[in-house]
Amino acid sequence: MNNKTWSGRFDEPVSELVKQYTASIPFDHRLARHDIQGSLAHAQMLCKAGVLSESDLADIRRGMAEILEEIDAGSLKWSLDLEDVHMNIERRLTEKIGDAGKRLHTGRSRNDQVATDIRLWLRDESDHISGLLADLQHALLDVAAEHSETVMPGFTHLQVAQPVSFGHHLLAYVEMFGRDRERLADCRKRLNRLPLGAAALAGTTYPVSRETTARLLGFDEVCQNSLDAVSDRDFAIEFTAAAALLMTHLSRLSEELIVWMSPRFAFIDLADRFCTGSSIMPQKKNPDVPELVRGKSARITGHLMALLTLMKSQPLAYNKDNQEDKEPLFDTVDTLVQTLKIYAEMVRGIRVKPENMRAAVMQGFATATDLADYLVKKGLPFRDSHEAVARAVRLAESKGVDLADLSLAELQNFSDLIADDVYRVLTPEGSLKARNHTGGTAPEQVRRQIERWRKLLA
Amino acid sequence: MNNKTWSGRFDEPVSELVKQYTASIPFDHRLARHDIQGSLAHAQMLCKAGVLSESDLADIRRGMAEILEEIDAGSLKWSLDLEDVHMNIERRLTEKIGDAGKRLHTGRSRNDQVATDIRLWLRDESDHISGLLADLQHALLDVAAEHSETVMPGFTHLQVAQPVSFGHHLLAYVEMFGRDRERLADCRKRLNRLPLGAAALAGTTYPVSRETTARLLGFDEVCQNSLDAVSDRDFAIEFTAAAALLMTHLSRLSEELIVWMSPRFAFIDLADRFCTGSSIMPQKKNPDVPELVRGKSARITGHLMALLTLMKSQPLAYNKDNQEDKEPLFDTVDTLVQTLKIYAEMVRGIRVKPENMRAAVMQGFATATDLADYLVKKGLPFRDSHEAVARAVRLAESKGVDLADLSLAELQNFSDLIADDVYRVLTPEGSLKARNHTGGTAPEQVRRQIERWRKLLA
Amino acid sequence: MNNKTWSGRFDEPVSELVKQYTASIPFDHRLARHDIQGSLAHAQMLCKAGVLSESDLADIRRGMAEILEEIDAGSLKWSLDLEDVHMNIERRLTEKIGDAGKRLHTGRSRNDQVATDIRLWLRDESDHISGLLADLQHALLDVAAEHSETVMPGFTHLQVAQPVSFGHHLLAYVEMFGRDRERLADCRKRLNRLPLGAAALAGTTYPVSRETTARLLGFDEVCQNSLDAVSDRDFAIEFTAAAALLMTHLSRLSEELIVWMSPRFAFIDLADRFCTGSSIMPQKKNPDVPELVRGKSARITGHLMALLTLMKSQPLAYNKDNQEDKEPLFDTVDTLVQTLKIYAEMVRGIRVKPENMRAAVMQGFATATDLADYLVKKGLPFRDSHEAVARAVRLAESKGVDLADLSLAELQNFSDLIADDVYRVLTPEGSLKARNHTGGTAPEQVRRQIERWRKLLA
Amino acid sequence: MNNKTWSGRFDEPVSELVKQYTASIPFDHRLARHDIQGSLAHAQMLCKAGVLSESDLADIRRGMAEILEEIDAGSLKWSLDLEDVHMNIERRLTEKIGDAGKRLHTGRSRNDQVATDIRLWLRDESDHISGLLADLQHALLDVAAEHSETVMPGFTHLQVAQPVSFGHHLLAYVEMFGRDRERLADCRKRLNRLPLGAAALAGTTYPVSRETTARLLGFDEVCQNSLDAVSDRDFAIEFTAAAALLMTHLSRLSEELIVWMSPRFAFIDLADRFCTGSSIMPQKKNPDVPELVRGKSARITGHLMALLTLMKSQPLAYNKDNQEDKEPLFDTVDTLVQTLKIYAEMVRGIRVKPENMRAAVMQGFATATDLADYLVKKGLPFRDSHEAVARAVRLAESKGVDLADLSLAELQNFSDLIADDVYRVLTPEGSLKARNHTGGTAPEQVRRQIERWRKLLA
Repeated sequence: MNNKTWSGRFDEPVSELVKQYTASIPFDHRLARHDIQGSLAHAQMLCKAGVLSESDLADIRRGMAEILEEIDAGSLKWSLDLEDVHMNIERRLTEKIGDAGKRLHTGRSRNDQVATDIRLWLRDESDHISGLLADLQHALLDVAAEHSETVMPGFTHLQVAQPVSFGHHLLAYVEMFGRDRERLADCRKRLNRLPLGAAALAGTTYPVSRETTARLLGFDEVCQNSLDAVSDRDFAIEFTAAAALLMTHLSRLSEELIVWMSPRFAFIDLADRFCTGSSIMPQKKNPDVPELVRGKSARITGHLMALLTLMKSQPLAYNKDNQEDKEPLFDTVDTLVQTLKIYAEMVRGIRVKPENMRAAVMQGFATATDLADYLVKKGLPFRDSHEAVARAVRLAESKGVDLADLSLAELQNFSDLIADDVYRVLTPEGSLKARNHTGGTAPEQVRRQIERWRKLLA
Repeated sequence: MNNKTWSGRFDEPVSELVKQYTASIPFDHRLARHDIQGSLAHAQMLCKAGVLSESDLADIRRGMAEILEEIDAGSLKWSLDLEDVHMNIERRLTEKIGDAGKRLHTGRSRNDQVATDIRLWLRDESDHISGLLADLQHALLDVAAEHSETVMPGFTHLQVAQPVSFGHHLLAYVEMFGRDRERLADCRKRLNRLPLGAAALAGTTYPVSRETTARLLGFDEVCQNSLDAVSDRDFAIEFTAAAALLMTHLSRLSEELIVWMSPRFAFIDLADRFCTGSSIMPQKKNPDVPELVRGKSARITGHLMALLTLMKSQPLAYNKDNQEDKEPLFDTVDTLVQTLKIYAEMVRGIRVKPENMRAAVMQGFATATDLADYLVKKGLPFRDSHEAVARAVRLAESKGVDLADLSLAELQNFSDLIADDVYRVLTPEGSLKARNHTGGTAPEQVRRQIERWRKLLA
Repeated sequence: MNNKTWSGRFDEPVSELVKQYTASIPFDHRLARHDIQGSLAHAQMLCKAGVLSESDLADIRRGMAEILEEIDAGSLKWSLDLEDVHMNIERRLTEKIGDAGKRLHTGRSRNDQVATDIRLWLRDESDHISGLLADLQHALLDVAAEHSETVMPGFTHLQVAQPVSFGHHLLAYVEMFGRDRERLADCRKRLNRLPLGAAALAGTTYPVSRETTARLLGFDEVCQNSLDAVSDRDFAIEFTAAAALLMTHLSRLSEELIVWMSPRFAFIDLADRFCTGSSIMPQKKNPDVPELVRGKSARITGHLMALLTLMKSQPLAYNKDNQEDKEPLFDTVDTLVQTLKIYAEMVRGIRVKPENMRAAVMQGFATATDLADYLVKKGLPFRDSHEAVARAVRLAESKGVDLADLSLAELQNFSDLIADDVYRVLTPEGSLKARNHTGGTAPEQVRRQIERWRKLLA
Repeated sequence: MNNKTWSGRFDEPVSELVKQYTASIPFDHRLARHDIQGSLAHAQMLCKAGVLSESDLADIRRGMAEILEEIDAGSLKWSLDLEDVHMNIERRLTEKIGDAGKRLHTGRSRNDQVATDIRLWLRDESDHISGLLADLQHALLDVAAEHSETVMPGFTHLQVAQPVSFGHHLLAYVEMFGRDRERLADCRKRLNRLPLGAAALAGTTYPVSRETTARLLGFDEVCQNSLDAVSDRDFAIEFTAAAALLMTHLSRLSEELIVWMSPRFAFIDLADRFCTGSSIMPQKKNPDVPELVRGKSARITGHLMALLTLMKSQPLAYNKDNQEDKEPLFDTVDTLVQTLKIYAEMVRGIRVKPENMRAAVMQGFATATDLADYLVKKGLPFRDSHEAVARAVRLAESKGVDLADLSLAELQNFSDLIADDVYRVLTPEGSLKARNHTGGTAPEQVRRQIERWRKLLA
C-alpha cells in the first residue's frame, strides 16, 4: 500500500530529496498531543451532527488513547514518508481501528487542522510563559523590597543623573514585564478562535457545527471566514512580536547586570552558579547568562523578521510557505521558557553592594538638580537657576570635589538665595525622599508600588 | 545671549557638524501642537499645585495661543541652534512673555516631555488610522455585497482548489483588517498612559499631581515608574508591529490584485485613474498602486526592525539613541495614512469580470472535493473516496475535459455509488451553496457576514 | 575530578539550568573535524617553536586520529558538562594521552580556537555551495539552450510588455547566480584569515609563529589584531548577507515557477516527483518545492537580521553573546545546501509548454513597442510615435483584437508613415530577432550568452 | 498639452492621490546630475550609431548644459505631474530644443535609465564614503600612535581579562574599517556594470552599442542580460549590507566610548563640542554623538531588511515595487557620510586618561594568565597551572589585593616552581611586552601595525 494519501493522481513517486525537504514531521511532532485533542473534539462534533456513528467515535477515542500512551512511552515511530504529524497519527489510528480512522478526516483538511493544532499548542505555551513572567516579576519585587532605600546613581546617557532607589530601578522592569503580560493576554484573544471547519479553504459540505467544536476545545469564538482561517498566521507574528519586545526588555536588564558586575562599577555580584570561567584566564568570572540573554534577544527579533517576510505578498489561501512558520515559532517559545526560568532564579541570586552604589552617587554631582530646584523654590526662574548651578558644578569639578563639599560662601557666589539649609537637599537620601509622588523614586513610593504589584499578581 | 540652555558647564560651543547631527527640529517640529497641548496642561497643574501663579498661567496661555497662530500661519521659524521642538517653543514663549516662560519647565524635563508629546500625537494618528481602516472595510463590504454569488476559483498553492464566492474572498480581508483594528485598540491602552512628571528619570521635587495632568490630557492613567516612563518606547514598537502586520495584509491583497489584473487571469480591472503607463511601451496599463503598496510593506517591516534593534541592550534610563525612534515612527504613520486612503478608493474602483472567473473555475477540477464528499455521504470512507476521485481526475485530465464532462458510465468506473444526481454537486454554484455554515463560502453565509460587519462598523 | 577547567576560583558549581542554557555542545559538535584540524596545526607549530616536544606532538597526533575514528563511528559521547566541542575533545585527548593533552591548549584560548574552527568549517561549506550554485547554473543553461527561440511574453508589472525568448528569461537567473558566486568568492578572502594566536584577546607570551599555523591550515594571511581576531564575526554576517541575497534570487524564480504552473498561465509543468497533493482535494498537484524555497528565503533574511542585531553595540573583545552566531549560521548553510541540490534537479525536470507561451504573447499587444520603433525609423520623434501607437492599441482593444489583426487602412489612420512592411515587425519572432545586441533577447544573443557561461563555468 | 507621456491609451487622468502616491520626483531629483550624465552618453552613442543626427546631439548637449545651470541655480522647478526626474528633465529639454528632445528617449526606457542613474550616483557616493572611512582610519592611527604604550585593561565579558595597549585596542577598529573598505571595493565591481540598452526589459531594435556607452560612462562592463539589467537591485542590497556592517562596527566603538566616558570608568573624555547638556540637570555632559551613532546603526539595519524584503518574490522584470529602493538607499548614504565625517573629528578630540586606565588594570587580576604562562614555562602542564593560579586569585581576592601584592611565600603555596622573578611578569607593562608576535599587544607590534596601515592608506 502506498503511504501517500494523494497518490492516485500522480505518475511518479515523490523524490527522496523532496520528501526530506518538504516533510514537517521532524519538527511538528511536538504538536502531537494538541493534534489528538483537536481530532477528538472534531470527532465528537461529527458524531453529534450525525456524520460519524457512535461506534466510530468510540473506536477513535480508544485508538487515540492508545496512541497517546505510545507517545508518552516514546514508542511511536514518526515516519518521514507520512510527511507530517497529522498523517502519522491518522495512519496509526487506521492501523488500530480500521475504517473509522479513515472517516476521521471527514469535513476537515490539513489546512484547518494544522492551524487548529498550532493555536491549541500556542495557547498553552503562552499561558505558561505568562506565568513565568509573573514569577520573574515576583523575584524582582523581592529584591526591590529589600532595597527600597538603597541609594544608587540613576543614569541617563550612562552619566550620573540623579540618585535613585535601587528598588525603584528594578521596578522599572516590573512595569515592562507587566506590559509584556498584557500583550500576551491581548494576543491570546485573537489566538483563541477556531479555524477548524474551514476545511481546505472554502468550508465543508457536511453539516458541521463549528460552534460545538469551539466549545469543546475552549475557543472563545470561531474564525468567521474560511479563506482567512486557513491562511492567517497573524497570531504567530503577533506572539513573536510580543516575544521580541519581551526579550528586548531582558536585553536591557542584562546589559545593566553586565555593566553593574564589571569591576569598574561593582554594584552587584551574580551568584557563582550563574557564571562561568575562562579556559585560559584563571581569574575570570563571567556573567555568561545575561550575555547569552542579550544575544538571544537578537535571535527572536530575527524570527519576527522571518515570519513577517514569510507572509509578505502571499496570495490566498494556503501556500506551502506557511509551513515555515513553525520552526521560528517553536524556537521563540523554547527560548522564552528557558530564559524566563533561569532569569527569575538569577535575579534572586543577585548580591547587591550598596556601599559601592552610594560611593558612585557621590561622584558626578547627582544632586545638582536638587540645588536648582532649591533655588526655584526661593524664587529664581528655573532657567536662571539651572545656569547658576551649572557654574557651581564647574567650580566643584575644577576643585575635584562634590557640590556638598563647597563652602556656603563659595555656593553663595552663584546665588545669594542660598542659605545653609542647602546642604540638606544635597544629600542623596534627601534627594530621594523629595521625589514623593506617583512614580517617583521616594522610598515611600517604592513601597507603595511593590504593594500594588503584589496585589495585581496575587 | 547664548542659545543653549545648558551651556554654563561647557568650555566650548557645540560644533556645527554636531549641531546638525544631533538636532531633531528638522523632523520633530511636527509635534508642535501636541507639545503645546502638553505644556498647557502641565502649567495648569502647576498652578493648581501652587507652583505657578495664576498670572504666570494666564501669560503662558496667551503666549501659547499666539505661537499656535504662528504655526498655523507658517510664520514660526524653527532654529537648529535650539535643537528640538521643545526648546524652540519655550524660547519663543519666553520672548513673548518673559520670566513666566522660563518657569514653565519647572518640574519636568525634556525626557518626560518628549515622551508625552509622542504619545499624544500617536494617539491622534492611531485613531485616524483606525477610522481609515474602517472605511477600507466598508469599501470591501460594498464590493463583496455585489458579488456574494459571483463564482471564482479559490486557490491554494495558486492551483485551483474549490469554487468560492468572490464576495467571500474579499471578506477574508475584512477579517484581517478587523484584527488590525483590534490590535490598534489594544496598543492604545498602553499608549494612553502619562509619562509627564517622571522629569529626567527620578520624578520631581515639586508637589506635582500627575493624575491631574493625566485627566486634563485624556490619559487613562499615569506611568507608574519614572525610570520606565522616560525610557519606554514599547508603544512605538507595538504600534509599528501592528502597522507591519497591517501592511503585510495589504501586500497580500495587492499581490492578488496584480495577479488578477494580469491578462492571463483577467479577473478584474483597476480603474485607469489608479494605473500608469510606460514611457516606451504604448500598450501598457500598470497596476502601480498595488505594486507600490506591496513594496511599502517592506519599508514598514524595516522600520519595525530598526526600532527593535534601537532599543536592544540600552541601559536605563534615557539615552540619546531614543531620538532615532521618531523618523521610523513618523514615516510609518504617513505611509499608513496615505496607503489606506488610496486603497479604499481603489477598491471601490475595481471592475470585476465574472465571466472570466467562472471560466477559470471550469478548468482545474474545482469540484473534485465535492465528488469525494458525495461518495462519503453514500458510505465510502473519506480516504477511499479521495483515492477514487483522484483516479477520475486523471482520466478527465488525459481527455482534456472537466469532471462534469465525464459520462455517468465513465464516472461509475471509479465507484458504483455514483448516480446521476452527481452532476448537481459538480457545478460551481452547487459547490458554493453546499458550504453553508459559519465561515463557509455559501452566498447566504457571505450575506450574513456582510450584515454582521456592517453592524460592527456602524 | 571536577569537569570544569576553571573551577578553582568558584564557590559553587554551575547550576544545571545554567549548564544547559550556556552549553554549545548540542550544536557545535559539528565543528569537531575542523577543531581537530586546527589543533593539529597548532600543535605542529608549537613543536616547531620548541614549546611542545616531538613526543608530545606524536601523542597528540595519535590521540586525535583515534578521536576522529570515534567521531566517524559515532561512538564519541558529547558531554554537556564539558560545555563545548573544544573541551570535549581536549578532555578525551587527555584521557587517551595524559599530560600532552593538557599542554595542547598552551598559547591559545577558546576565543581564538572557536573563531578558527568556524572559519575552517565555513570555508569548506562556502566552497561546496559555490559548486552547487554552478551546477544550478548548468541546469538553467541546459534548459535555456533548448529554448533560445521559444517565444514567451516578457512581463513588467505582470502585464505583457514585449516578447522575449524563454531561454533569455532563464539566463537572467544565471546572471544573478553568477553574482552570488562572485560574492561568495569575495567573502572567502576575508574569511580565510587566521585568528589563532590571538589567544584570549591580547596575543600570547609563547614564541608562536602564527604565519606557520596559517600556512599549515591554508589561510591566506593572519588576522592582524588580536582583539579584532577574537571578536570579529564579520565573515558570518557577510556570508549570511550573501546567502540572503541568493535566497532572494531563488524566491523570485520560485514565484515565477509557481505563477507559470498555475492553470491560468500553464507555461510550464513541474515533474510529479517535485510536487505533492492534498489530503482533501483529489485533483491537486502543488508546487511545494518552490513554495518552500520562497518561504525559506524569509528564514535566511531573519538569520541575517539576528546576526547583525547580535553584534550591535558589543564592546570588545569577546562576549558570550557571540555563541549565538552558530545556530543561524549553521541553519543558513544547511538551507542553502539542501535548497540548491533540489533546485538544480527540479529545473532539469521542468516541462515547457511553448504553445501556451506563444498564445499569451498574442494577447496583450506585446509588439506595440516594435510598432513605435518602426515609426521612429520612418522619421517620427519617439514621443509622437509612442502617442500614435497608444491610440492604435485603444482601437485594437475596443475591437478585441491584436495589433497585427488591424487592417493597413486602420493602422494608417494613426500615421501615414505606416506601409505594409509593418506586419513583419508585429510578429513575436520578428520582435525577438530585432533586439540583437549584447544582452538583448535575440536568439543569436541568447546562444552567445550560453556559450560565454559554459566557458566561464568550465 | 497633456503632461503624461503615456496618456493615449487611458480613459481618465490619474487621480491626484495616485499622482502623489506614485511620484518619485520628491526624492529622486537628487539623481538629476547623473541622469543628465547618462543621457549625454546615450545621445553620443546614438549619434555614432547613426540613430541621432549630429545637430540633434549638439542641441541636446546645449540644452542639457542649460538645465545643469538651472539645477545649480536652484531655478529648475520639479513637477509632480511629470512623475520622476527623468520625465522632468526630458520635458524641460524638449521645451528648450524641440523635437531633438523627443528623440533622446530612442532606444531606452525609464527602466534601464533609472537603473543607470542609481549606479552612476552610488558609484560616486561609494567612493566618497571609502575616502571618509580612510580618514577615520587615519584619525584612529593618530591616537593609537600616541598610545602604543598606554596600558588599559582588556575586557572580555566586560570583566578585566589581560592588559592591552590602548593603541592596540584602537587598531582593532582600524582592521574593521579596513574590511569595510574592502567590501565597498568588492561591491563596486558589481555596481559598475551598465544596464542602459536593456530598454524596457528585452533590449532595443536600434543598432545601439552598449559597449560604447559603457566606455563613455566609465563602466567596467555591460550587464549581459536585459531582463536582469532592469530588475536587478543586488547592488543596492549589497551596498546596504556593507553599510549595516560598517555601522555595526561604529556602534561597537560608540558603546565603548560611552562606557569609557562614564564616571565609573573615566578612561576618556570627549571634547565639549561633541557633547550636549541637559535641560534640567545642570551638571550633565552627555556623549550624544556616539549614542546617536549607536542608534543609527539600527536604522541602517532596518533599511537592509526593507530592501531584502522588497525584492523577495518579485517576478521579472521591472515592477513598481522597485521604486521603493531609493529612499532607504539615499538615507543609508546620507547617514554614512554624516556619521563618518563627525566621527573622524570626534576621535581626534578624545582626551585619554592613562592614569585611570592603569588603575583599572590593577584591579581585576589582569596578569593571572601571565602567571599561568610563567608556570607552564617552568614545566607545569597548562591545565594544572591554570588551576593553581585560580586558587591564588581566590586568596588575593579574599585579602582584597592584587596578585602582585601577594608575598613570595604566599605565591609559593600554590606552586613551588615560583621564584622571585615572578614579579616581573605580574606588571602590566611586562604583560604587554611579552605578547610580541603578529597581532599581539606588545608596543613594538602596535607600532609596526600603525606603519603598515599608514603605507596601505598612503
